[in-house]
Amino acid sequence: MDQALVLSIDAMGGDFGPAVTVEGVALALAASARPLRFILHGDQALLDSEIARRPALAGRVAVRHTDTVISGDTKPAQALRRGKGTSLWNAVEAVKAGEAKAAISGGNTGALMAISKLQLRMAGGLDRPAIVASWPTLRGFTAVLDVGANIDCDAAQLVEFAIMGAAFFRAVHAGSADYSPRVGVLNVGSEDMKGHQEVRDAHQILKDAGLDFDYRGFVEGNDIAMGAVDVIVTDGFTGNVALKTGEGMARFFGQTLRSALSETWMTKLGALIASRALKSLKARLDPSSVNGGPLLGLNGTVVKSHGSADAKGFANAIRVAADLAASSYAVEIARDMERLSRAKAEPAVPPQAVEV
Amino acid sequence: MDQALVLSIDAMGGDFGPAVTVEGVALALAASARPLRFILHGDQALLDSEIARRPALAGRVAVRHTDTVISGDTKPAQALRRGKGTSLWNAVEAVKAGEAKAAISGGNTGALMAISKLQLRMAGGLDRPAIVASWPTLRGFTAVLDVGANIDCDAAQLVEFAIMGAAFFRAVHAGSADYSPRVGVLNVGSEDMKGHQEVRDAHQILKDAGLDFDYRGFVEGNDIAMGAVDVIVTDGFTGNVALKTGEGMARFFGQTLRSALSETWMTKLGALIASRALKSLKARLDPSSVNGGPLLGLNGTVVKSHGSADAKGFANAIRVAADLAASSYAVEIARDMERLSRAKAEPAVPPQAVEV
Repeated sequence: MDQALVLSIDAMGGDFGPAVTVEGVALALAASARPLRFILHGDQALLDSEIARRPALAGRVAVRHTDTVISGDTKPAQALRRGKGTSLWNAVEAVKAGEAKAAISGGNTGALMAISKLQLRMAGGLDRPAIVASWPTLRGFTAVLDVGANIDCDAAQLVEFAIMGAAFFRAVHAGSADYSPRVGVLNVGSEDMKGHQEVRDAHQILKDAGLDFDYRGFVEGNDIAMGAVDVIVTDGFTGNVALKTGEGMARFFGQTLRSALSETWMTKLGALIASRALKSLKARLDPSSVNGGPLLGLNGTVVKSHGSADAKGFANAIRVAADLAASSYAVEIARDMERLSRAKAEPAVPPQAVEV
Repeated sequence: MDQALVLSIDAMGGDFGPAVTVEGVALALAASARPLRFILHGDQALLDSEIARRPALAGRVAVRHTDTVISGDTKPAQALRRGKGTSLWNAVEAVKAGEAKAAISGGNTGALMAISKLQLRMAGGLDRPAIVASWPTLRGFTAVLDVGANIDCDAAQLVEFAIMGAAFFRAVHAGSADYSPRVGVLNVGSEDMKGHQEVRDAHQILKDAGLDFDYRGFVEGNDIAMGAVDVIVTDGFTGNVALKTGEGMARFFGQTLRSALSETWMTKLGALIASRALKSLKARLDPSSVNGGPLLGLNGTVVKSHGSADAKGFANAIRVAADLAASSYAVEIARDMERLSRAKAEPAVPPQAVEV
């Protein structure tokens, strides 16, 4: 046996099932500098036939048969009661059992969240999982969290998101284990008194707690795409709206540009000549390059792939899972949670209280 | 005296003062089908010299001198205590005194909000003013409110935003007084049980109250730029983040496109040939075409122009103010508020309670 990193795949999840998940596995395997092995959960016959068509997968994948799946409209509570033995459940269970280092699924988000939380439990001191999104910016990527797992968030949760987001960014985007991510809290202005109580309280804690990242204070919506910071912290309602607003804007630009360029034969000619530039722009806005939203805060790595992701996108979700699983992000989170509880026990003397 | 609509201008507001506001007045006057007159509040000597250079303004503008202004960093409470006699204050006061039908200012938003609320008061039954933004979409414009005036909103406020937003859309964007605007509540999903309590309660009220617009239920962030509905209702925190996220995406897209097109001589040539298309795209994304955010809900029309708006943008804010002031939007809001209180008094029988 080699020292390969083992990943557990819900091969039936996503809008396209095995055709996309198995091709995604093949792409991820080909692109990875790290040796990888896979456990694929799903229909044996279907998976065997997809695997047989890709010789590079030989000896790298094992199939665990199941003929049940969780459908897209299953509620989280139903998924917990009746989800046992499905491809999604088994994919997460393999992480719990220690057979795999991470699970990847393109299935039902609420079900994945509930089943992962039940099986893996929250890591020490953390309250609830958060979903993090990687946002393409002028400078690279910005991690935005939470983007939908937690609708109402208090200050303590926002602080946890900062800790988890910084560790995520370091593992997946920083390119160096020593990098100190720049973290901001999303607000409607940059002054201390702006925004609602939760963001102001989180801001105060983050300024004083001495955590292992570079806290930059409040940021605004326009800072996201500018890449003003590496990690942007917000509640799941605002984060989900911001993320989808950005997706809508990307589609709006794409369609507006396309229709502007096809107005006359002259503009069509220009577009043809500049096609290399337009292709590089398209690649820059390609959702597959950012696919893969980890559920942070669990004892184990679980990554959600977008249901409509193609094989390239699914491969990217696998890459994110492998980077996280191979990193020390769990240790870093635990260390910052420890710092946080020490800071709470011995609050810093507020500077304005010191008189000479 | 002709039957001109009189507009009151804070001529000192905005980052560029009279050079932009007076030119904006000239552009608005030239473009308006409606006869307009203006009262300009600010420094007499500065304004006279700007006016003298534009012969078309002769007989159309009157200057009211003041040598005080409210600065950008003045807090709302300070503005209320010490703002009397400033150009911003006087611009709003002229509406209160009935001398003008609407006030337009590019000054301090918080100060404008506080002073307008103090002087004009809320219209019958309404709780607090909302700022509405016009968002360019694939189908035209979508009105999004609130975008920053109200950080925490309850369900009753969200319902008021729907009423005000529908009346605003009809007056400024619909092109017909009979149009029934499509209204949606911004959420993280479309099912009834999604989101926090405030949006779910607002959704329930809007479904049942029989108000004078076409309520379409929940919409998501990506629906904004798609133009899925005409009016999108949200709290001021989420709305502000969404608006600024969209602005950031527009800048991201513009810069990425520009740098992609200037990569090689080939792409530069293509861009040159397609320049007409690229110009029309730029015009589509031009912030001046959407400048002008009315403060809705007051007894009188007040429009906030972006501080950094150019003359074309300021002229658009004037156009929005004139459209609103000439419309029956105040009457429409009053009518829907009346319907709402009747609906509260006699709740509809829930359909599921009827058995045969």
